[in-house]
Amino acid sequence: MSEINEQGIINQSALKFIACEKPVEEADICLFGAPFDSTASFRPGSRFAPQAMRQDSWALETYSPYQDDDLENKKVCDCGDLELPLGETEAALAKIKDQAAAVCDAGKIPFMIGGEHLVTYGALEACYEKFGVNLRLIHIDAHTDLRDELFGVKLSHATVIRRCAEMLGDKKVYQFGIRSGEKQEFEWAEEHTTLHKFDLEGLEKTVERLRGYPVYFTLDLDALDPSVFPGTGTPEPGGVSYAELQKAVIKICGELNIVGCDIVELAPGLDQSGASTAAACKILREMLIAL
Amino acid sequence: MSEINEQGIINQSALKFIACEKPVEEADICLFGAPFDSTASFRPGSRFAPQAMRQDSWALETYSPYQDDDLENKKVCDCGDLELPLGETEAALAKIKDQAAAVCDAGKIPFMIGGEHLVTYGALEACYEKFGVNLRLIHIDAHTDLRDELFGVKLSHATVIRRCAEMLGDKKVYQFGIRSGEKQEFEWAEEHTTLHKFDLEGLEKTVERLRGYPVYFTLDLDALDPSVFPGTGTPEPGGVSYAELQKAVIKICGELNIVGCDIVELAPGLDQSGASTAAACKILREMLIAL
Amino acid sequence: MSEINEQGIINQSALKFIACEKPVEEADICLFGAPFDSTASFRPGSRFAPQAMRQDSWALETYSPYQDDDLENKKVCDCGDLELPLGETEAALAKIKDQAAAVCDAGKIPFMIGGEHLVTYGALEACYEKFGVNLRLIHIDAHTDLRDELFGVKLSHATVIRRCAEMLGDKKVYQFGIRSGEKQEFEWAEEHTTLHKFDLEGLEKTVERLRGYPVYFTLDLDALDPSVFPGTGTPEPGGVSYAELQKAVIKICGELNIVGCDIVELAPGLDQSGASTAAACKILREMLIAL
Amino acid sequence: MSEINEQGIINQSALKFIACEKPVEEADICLFGAPFDSTASFRPGSRFAPQAMRQDSWALETYSPYQDDDLENKKVCDCGDLELPLGETEAALAKIKDQAAAVCDAGKIPFMIGGEHLVTYGALEACYEKFGVNLRLIHIDAHTDLRDELFGVKLSHATVIRRCAEMLGDKKVYQFGIRSGEKQEFEWAEEHTTLHKFDLEGLEKTVERLRGYPVYFTLDLDALDPSVFPGTGTPEPGGVSYAELQKAVIKICGELNIVGCDIVELAPGLDQSGASTAAACKILREMLIAL
Amino acid sequence: MSEINEQGIINQSALKFIACEKPVEEADICLFGAPFDSTASFRPGSRFAPQAMRQDSWALETYSPYQDDDLENKKVCDCGDLELPLGETEAALAKIKDQAAAVCDAGKIPFMIGGEHLVTYGALEACYEKFGVNLRLIHIDAHTDLRDELFGVKLSHATVIRRCAEMLGDKKVYQFGIRSGEKQEFEWAEEHTTLHKFDLEGLEKTVERLRGYPVYFTLDLDALDPSVFPGTGTPEPGGVSYAELQKAVIKICGELNIVGCDIVELAPGLDQSGASTAAACKILREMLIAL
Amino acid sequence: MSEINEQGIINQSALKFIACEKPVEEADICLFGAPFDSTASFRPGSRFAPQAMRQDSWALETYSPYQDDDLENKKVCDCGDLELPLGETEAALAKIKDQAAAVCDAGKIPFMIGGEHLVTYGALEACYEKFGVNLRLIHIDAHTDLRDELFGVKLSHATVIRRCAEMLGDKKVYQFGIRSGEKQEFEWAEEHTTLHKFDLEGLEKTVERLRGYPVYFTLDLDALDPSVFPGTGTPEPGGVSYAELQKAVIKICGELNIVGCDIVELAPGLDQSGASTAAACKILREMLIAL
Repeated sequence: MSEINEQGIINQSALKFIACEKPVEEADICLFGAPFDSTASFRPGSRFAPQAMRQDSWALETYSPYQDDDLENKKVCDCGDLELPLGETEAALAKIKDQAAAVCDAGKIPFMIGGEHLVTYGALEACYEKFGVNLRLIHIDAHTDLRDELFGVKLSHATVIRRCAEMLGDKKVYQFGIRSGEKQEFEWAEEHTTLHKFDLEGLEKTVERLRGYPVYFTLDLDALDPSVFPGTGTPEPGGVSYAELQKAVIKICGELNIVGCDIVELAPGLDQSGASTAAACKILREMLIAL
Repeated sequence: MSEINEQGIINQSALKFIACEKPVEEADICLFGAPFDSTASFRPGSRFAPQAMRQDSWALETYSPYQDDDLENKKVCDCGDLELPLGETEAALAKIKDQAAAVCDAGKIPFMIGGEHLVTYGALEACYEKFGVNLRLIHIDAHTDLRDELFGVKLSHATVIRRCAEMLGDKKVYQFGIRSGEKQEFEWAEEHTTLHKFDLEGLEKTVERLRGYPVYFTLDLDALDPSVFPGTGTPEPGGVSYAELQKAVIKICGELNIVGCDIVELAPGLDQSGASTAAACKILREMLIAL
Repeated sequence: MSEINEQGIINQSALKFIACEKPVEEADICLFGAPFDSTASFRPGSRFAPQAMRQDSWALETYSPYQDDDLENKKVCDCGDLELPLGETEAALAKIKDQAAAVCDAGKIPFMIGGEHLVTYGALEACYEKFGVNLRLIHIDAHTDLRDELFGVKLSHATVIRRCAEMLGDKKVYQFGIRSGEKQEFEWAEEHTTLHKFDLEGLEKTVERLRGYPVYFTLDLDALDPSVFPGTGTPEPGGVSYAELQKAVIKICGELNIVGCDIVELAPGLDQSGASTAAACKILREMLIAL
Repeated sequence: MSEINEQGIINQSALKFIACEKPVEEADICLFGAPFDSTASFRPGSRFAPQAMRQDSWALETYSPYQDDDLENKKVCDCGDLELPLGETEAALAKIKDQAAAVCDAGKIPFMIGGEHLVTYGALEACYEKFGVNLRLIHIDAHTDLRDELFGVKLSHATVIRRCAEMLGDKKVYQFGIRSGEKQEFEWAEEHTTLHKFDLEGLEKTVERLRGYPVYFTLDLDALDPSVFPGTGTPEPGGVSYAELQKAVIKICGELNIVGCDIVELAPGLDQSGASTAAACKILREMLIAL
Repeated sequence: MSEINEQGIINQSALKFIACEKPVEEADICLFGAPFDSTASFRPGSRFAPQAMRQDSWALETYSPYQDDDLENKKVCDCGDLELPLGETEAALAKIKDQAAAVCDAGKIPFMIGGEHLVTYGALEACYEKFGVNLRLIHIDAHTDLRDELFGVKLSHATVIRRCAEMLGDKKVYQFGIRSGEKQEFEWAEEHTTLHKFDLEGLEKTVERLRGYPVYFTLDLDALDPSVFPGTGTPEPGGVSYAELQKAVIKICGELNIVGCDIVELAPGLDQSGASTAAACKILREMLIAL
Repeated sequence: MSEINEQGIINQSALKFIACEKPVEEADICLFGAPFDSTASFRPGSRFAPQAMRQDSWALETYSPYQDDDLENKKVCDCGDLELPLGETEAALAKIKDQAAAVCDAGKIPFMIGGEHLVTYGALEACYEKFGVNLRLIHIDAHTDLRDELFGVKLSHATVIRRCAEMLGDKKVYQFGIRSGEKQEFEWAEEHTTLHKFDLEGLEKTVERLRGYPVYFTLDLDALDPSVFPGTGTPEPGGVSYAELQKAVIKICGELNIVGCDIVELAPGLDQSGASTAAACKILREMLIAL
């Protein structure tokens, strides 16, 4: 993390997520932050997630005893945070799309750390332009995110998966862990997506079915039970356990052809114990190792 | 939540628990807050629960995917908080009793949000005067609450179920989830109540046995494990999970003749993540839908 | 605050700022909240200010020993919060403008509680359409808010007074307390506004000069020293004392023809002691009494 | 603070306020805590003050450069906290009175750490029984505390000085720093007490006048400006500075015949920086040295 | 907890862990605090654990419904905290060793409350000098703590079990719950300790095997899942549940010949809900009752 | 702060204090963090100061209206944090000394951000070796820091200025703002340093006297009143105002031959409002501009 110049002065380089310090040209995966939370209707703060995760990742080991592998062995570059215009939804999404497209075009995997869930839309759009109608979306979340609009707004954290499903086409989105939404959202899901209520059951079959397809994987961390992950804008009781989620992400990232990825909705300031940030960091480590 | 007067000025009406906005006359259930915590011996703060729950309930959906029903379909009026004289235990309990009695007399169900557990005594008294010796009490809690007195005081959060049991008569109180108390309290329970230690086992049988009886249901949220519900004055490790509790309250409220109800001991300021308040709100939604 | 229906059930009415409970038709002043903070670039949270101020105002007395007058004697209606689309800057400003215009048209004074400082733009626009080129703006703040754009955005908390000054015309904005900004902003001010650095000196003369004009008064509470008012997104050391500010607002509101007013940038969650919210409430009380 | 038994095992004695470790029999001043806050209508938590002050006092020096004297030279015994029945106002006051009476009877000065302001009533009663009609009361506070009742209650933090003034007789209470109250309270004060608004002006003359009288001194720390002392239930902006208060208490305690004393309304949990507790500790040190 | 002198003045004795108030000479177990956290590399604060546990233990009952026994029946003396020189690792460990040795020599069991994990080294050394090569160590933790050095330092929270294992000799340390460490640490463990990954499986067999041996038991509370125990310097998701840990410690303490014991790494300030401190207190009660 | 590689991927460089982004070779001033707080006896946390200041500095403007100058015009390199072995006092000080020596030797000014006050010793030693007996020390602080030892330790935050004074020789240390210490420390100061009690009076004369000398300036931010700066380990009421301190540091840095500098004892976690960090950042900006 630091270098010594010829005068002997120690000079620290950029703070990066632990062991994600490859030069961008050599990397297979480009990690970047999308610190945007302007449409959060309840409690903002997810904009601070990427930087908090970088900082606290240094309390983590790079070695995973679960996968018996080390993040040091992977080629990951943490590109830092995008500078996004708060309060300007469309401009922010365009910047995200540009970054994801540049990464895709260089033959690397874009891995975005939100921010609120809406950021997924920008990154998915870049992948869709590259991978087209074969692209599938795996969505783990507590909430359906399938509203048509919220307070008259079409692009919002509560509508993002609806917009994504409309982009990709019917039955190309696979939703897991969903335990909250309006009745109409669940009804819409019946026709347009494949929705698994409450937990991660059915994931194995979905992984079987999606082999060979290019897949974007979006993980809203509030799928986790609030006991494990209270640091999020809209905690929703009755979620999945840490062990269940870890097993699932290793399966998804390890067995499928993931072409884009994100992890969203950590609001570190809402959990001053740091346990939520630690959970986010560890899940991220396991995903990066599995990819 | 808001109306526009003829001059075009928007004017907001009272903040109520989500979807509990029926006029009091049309309601089947009257929700009201009892913001009293004067006898809390360790950490006060439950007085702030009803208002916190109203505010955070708006991050909740009205639809329950668990029961496939919507709170909008129920006739609930949130009557707001009683104004209670802090530090004047008996006067406060009298005010609570009056409100509960007025609700009962109008043929509605009183549903009280505490405050500390002592508030149950006032509401139960009103129900007892109306329903008499048939009345039964289901009590879910981490603590026995069966002391005869605390620091020489007869009416306190630590003695409230003892007082209730004495009012209703022997073996009319069914206790669940109990994992803390003095040895004498457990011994007293053996003779005078039906106490289930540690978890909710035996609830099914109890529900069978109580069919047909008028039942008051008091839920001390600290029955939940502190991982799920740290925002309470006296967290007691080793509690029930959110899923277990949710299943239990749906059963109790859905299958029995509930004539009064309360939910107590959320201290929102002790859990700044908001996860405890979210858990309380969701349990309340499920109870209201099931009733 | 509460009424009793004919069945004896107590029912609480809306939570309003203390003693601001006149019906809207009878009011001289319409208080309303504008819970918008989407362009906050550093730390959001001012969206929670209006509701926090209502709640904590009940710890305040209605009587001011400073002015020897009582808020009970004033005709103020607290209309509650507008419902604003977060992340949609222009739509939010339009809604604010509509409300302020309706209040102005009814011959009342709009008094807005922010939210971030950008909300001023919407309300000022309504006043400008009604009062035209005579309208003057008094602006107390720690920051110039005179940037031309921020991250490429024209409407933002950092550009709002620039936009206001452009609307009203040169030298119609009077700025006080300013102790932070870019060099270019101070230079722009020299030509286009009347800017008083660091403190409130010169206010007396300004009040003399503005007698007779319709005046809009916008108060960014971060003009206060952070020792008094830490609960704000961008605390700026070296500010004015509470006593200085109180004296100033009584003078401005008491001696000028105020046609619109706002108080912005309290972020209550950033000061968990409640002292910042208390300061905001008391300043608001003194302003309302003086108006 | 610790001793070693003959087996070499280190054994810690009670945590006491720094340098207040004289045996009770040898002491001139008996410090004791009155952890009672049951009538707090806004935010409780002052019950935790005495223990927090003991703990944090160890970050203080015993030497005062202001008075060039050392607390080690004084004979003070910290007797710890009384065990008070929460929610039982009268019983709690009786216990406080008993302790203060025992201390007075032993020829020592009772010095009580609250708790809420109501605790003063119990201690003053003990002094009044001993010193009779000559007893005077100096009261420094932000609030009048002169209501006749609050929510129908006669003994409360908001009525306590009214009750005290009624006990001692007209014009025997001297109030300073008062900046909040109902109009009626200020009017009542005109007839029955000597009230100095806003600051500590007039204190010198009062000290002159009271020479020779037995005086009880009650200090509500919220007289301090909330910038210095945010950790209190009802922060009231516009208060006195730390330096002003320190000078005043040294004068009062150093020049008058103080027969009883208290310091109330620190709520340490409301100021997590610890600065409020530090201010309370330092004021207490200066008072004890001056006595 | 308090006594009344002959003048009737109530005087409080030392704050001790609930029901651990036997005189040191009569005690079978000597509890003492080791408030040291100077080598904590991520977030300090465990130095405050012993005092926080004493204070919050008074919200606990002395009776355990799990073991149907009461802490009042045990002979435990809480000797308070050692005074340790912060920033002086070796001097601090020497003081800890002296205290543990004095307790051992008196035929009692030393039970230490950390502080960070390094404190174990001092206490174990004392036991090793008394019990020699037969001594075994049971270590429950999330982390291996088997590094050879950290930032060039040999004695640190991250190296402590390595140092302990080197002291006792190969294969005398039994590790459980381990889910974090460097690859080399896991490899070192294969040769030198008996390490059980992730959970407490294998504990029954270990207890069988160790019957008859003198055993030191060190419990790093971060073995618990962060949902149960967020108040620790380095939360590590995926840990054991409270019920599992409680069952394990009862087995270990109840069935083995425990000659020394500790419980470390609670950082109470990191979990402001108090749930972590409550969990630590309850585990400690169960251990003391089982011993 | 970010660059775009030839593939169009945005890559963020290191987070630095605002406008301190010159390459180390071109810089006149080398800023570096010394995140060490192992000897803190009361509340640790100053190790987090440098990183918190970097992050929050971006809410600050680079332009100072006080000095009408811009930090962009200065040549400052933020070299990041040293990696210091926590709990190893002497090794940490050696590392600090090495860095300061390398900076001095390159003809630049070392400017260190603590950490606790002990870090000053390492940097001063480097300057002393370079500038010898002419070196003078200006010390602004609330505390004397002149103990001979603390808990038997010679190198500690409470002894650091004693050690510095012994190194430089008698009467070469000028202390200001001092309002806390043991009687013996004030006595020692009378013979060996020049100590100004309570405030900054006498600073002008000191600056006159020290013209021409090489001067090291150490600023313990707890000299500020806790109302302005609660975020510090040992808040000491009765301190200097922000305006007074700002004026003083501009004078010292602007008029003297400063050869080394530090700013210590911000503990950002203790002031969650961020106001303390903001004060530290602004003081630092003014110092850097004045140098």
